[in-house]
Amino acid sequence: MNAPVPMFEPQDPDFAARVRASFARQKAMAFIGARLAGLGPGWTEVELPHRDELTQQKGYLHGGIVGMIGDNACGYAAFSLMPAGCSILTVEYKMNILAPGLGLRYVARGEVIRPGSRLSVTRADVYAESGDRRTHIATIQETLMMLPDTPDVPE
Amino acid sequence: MNAPVPMFEPQDPDFAARVRASFARQKAMAFIGARLAGLGPGWTEVELPHRDELTQQKGYLHGGIVGMIGDNACGYAAFSLMPAGCSILTVEYKMNILAPGLGLRYVARGEVIRPGSRLSVTRADVYAESGDRRTHIATIQETLMMLPDTPDVPE
Amino acid sequence: MNAPVPMFEPQDPDFAARVRASFARQKAMAFIGARLAGLGPGWTEVELPHRDELTQQKGYLHGGIVGMIGDNACGYAAFSLMPAGCSILTVEYKMNILAPGLGLRYVARGEVIRPGSRLSVTRADVYAESGDRRTHIATIQETLMMLPDTPDVPE
Amino acid sequence: MNAPVPMFEPQDPDFAARVRASFARQKAMAFIGARLAGLGPGWTEVELPHRDELTQQKGYLHGGIVGMIGDNACGYAAFSLMPAGCSILTVEYKMNILAPGLGLRYVARGEVIRPGSRLSVTRADVYAESGDRRTHIATIQETLMMLPDTPDVPE
Repeated sequence: MNAPVPMFEPQDPDFAARVRASFARQKAMAFIGARLAGLGPGWTEVELPHRDELTQQKGYLHGGIVGMIGDNACGYAAFSLMPAGCSILTVEYKMNILAPGLGLRYVARGEVIRPGSRLSVTRADVYAESGDRRTHIATIQETLMMLPDTPDVPE
Repeated sequence: MNAPVPMFEPQDPDFAARVRASFARQKAMAFIGARLAGLGPGWTEVELPHRDELTQQKGYLHGGIVGMIGDNACGYAAFSLMPAGCSILTVEYKMNILAPGLGLRYVARGEVIRPGSRLSVTRADVYAESGDRRTHIATIQETLMMLPDTPDVPE
Repeated sequence: MNAPVPMFEPQDPDFAARVRASFARQKAMAFIGARLAGLGPGWTEVELPHRDELTQQKGYLHGGIVGMIGDNACGYAAFSLMPAGCSILTVEYKMNILAPGLGLRYVARGEVIRPGSRLSVTRADVYAESGDRRTHIATIQETLMMLPDTPDVPE
Repeated sequence: MNAPVPMFEPQDPDFAARVRASFARQKAMAFIGARLAGLGPGWTEVELPHRDELTQQKGYLHGGIVGMIGDNACGYAAFSLMPAGCSILTVEYKMNILAPGLGLRYVARGEVIRPGSRLSVTRADVYAESGDRRTHIATIQETLMMLPDTPDVPE
């Protein structure tokens, strides 16, 4: 991945453990088989192996699943720059599908465009990979909100 | 559901069977447990019972799953007005999350705003329901493209 | 206009004067010739007579101008439900162009979908009108943020 | 500007003259004082000097004007890669405002993410500039449609 990543300084030195623990609590990620494959201050990579259960009517990866890993890539990119003890919620996202999703695995690369004290703006690009071939299948622009002093666990 | 639905005339008198067959080919819908609960010319309802496997880190329905049923509600609303023998693809969608997804079941109501010869613009609203209580949890605006004379099945 | 408008209770009894004063401070609205034609708790109408100076390369109303009046219709719909003494900013908006903008005048009707303590989600529909004919030319989904205790005037 | 620009091969060797002529027909650009400051295959730069007539209620550049130059930057980036003799229309765009627009001039840099035979997906970033200082004020994701064999002039 050669996407340009601005350098951000994390507020929380333990951001990586905090992000990984939150991702691990997402039962939906385990359900579809996605994992957090890469992580740094202000960026993430979410990886999903192809499974027939995740396809739409023509056999491609369902657009909703593409959005699901892209949304997570954006959300945890933003969460990595937030302070300890906060919670995060998705305000909105917008996704363009660029090509049909057909590969052996899919990778969503998320990065922060602008971190904010309350709102963060992020972007993710999703790729389908098969052997040496990588196809850019979607691009997402997403807004997230930080909730200070709110546990990131079920109430 | 009392959302105002403009009256559209379907081009294909057998649109309902065509939409139901296409929905049934979406393995991803069976995988998450969603079904096509209602259908008419230019509108659909997709229903999803709550399952813990579909939740995010705080126990709410994952935003990507919300997008997934909303995307489908939009797509099949548009597909219902398209001619027989065509295929459809999602160009893009944008979703605002309005409230945390927490209910016994979720309903996405999709409707066509403007049907077009190539591009259709649609909207969906997603609700969480628990007994008598219904919460509006998301609203989606989506663009779809009709591919004429293209089978809506795997190649 | 028969768009369904949910009934909202304004927090500020003087919301109408506050919204009108803010709109009047927007030099850009005077510049293009737009005015606030209608206003209630949670909704607005912005009206713009056609002018050749506002067109794009094919003689239609420039899409950016369509966005401009739609953005304002959304923003002031949200602002009408906010408390006195606050300021508002646009977080993001997404607009679909439905038809070329060609009319004697244009009307953007904005309404609040969900008012929030910090974030509000709104929608606007823009119409081109010529005599008896009205064409739906755009639909917008927009997020706004309330800044408490911040003057809505230049610093 | 150091944004990474993928290398695209234009279909029309005279794309630059074609884009400049189309931009020059946009009366709305002359009206606000914007000009096409840079252009290549798959990218553009639109520049706008600050004017008080273009401001909103707090004295910042109106968000609709930000969208207007961003929309144009996207549109002409896409148009540069299209064949001679076609026309273009904006399908939709989504813009996040990242910071208040306050500068001596504004620059919108647009680039093509994925050119398509019918639909193109683009992005623009808008900056406010004052002397040495540059602030990233908005980011836009936009879809455009090519209309083959359609004159790009008023009918």
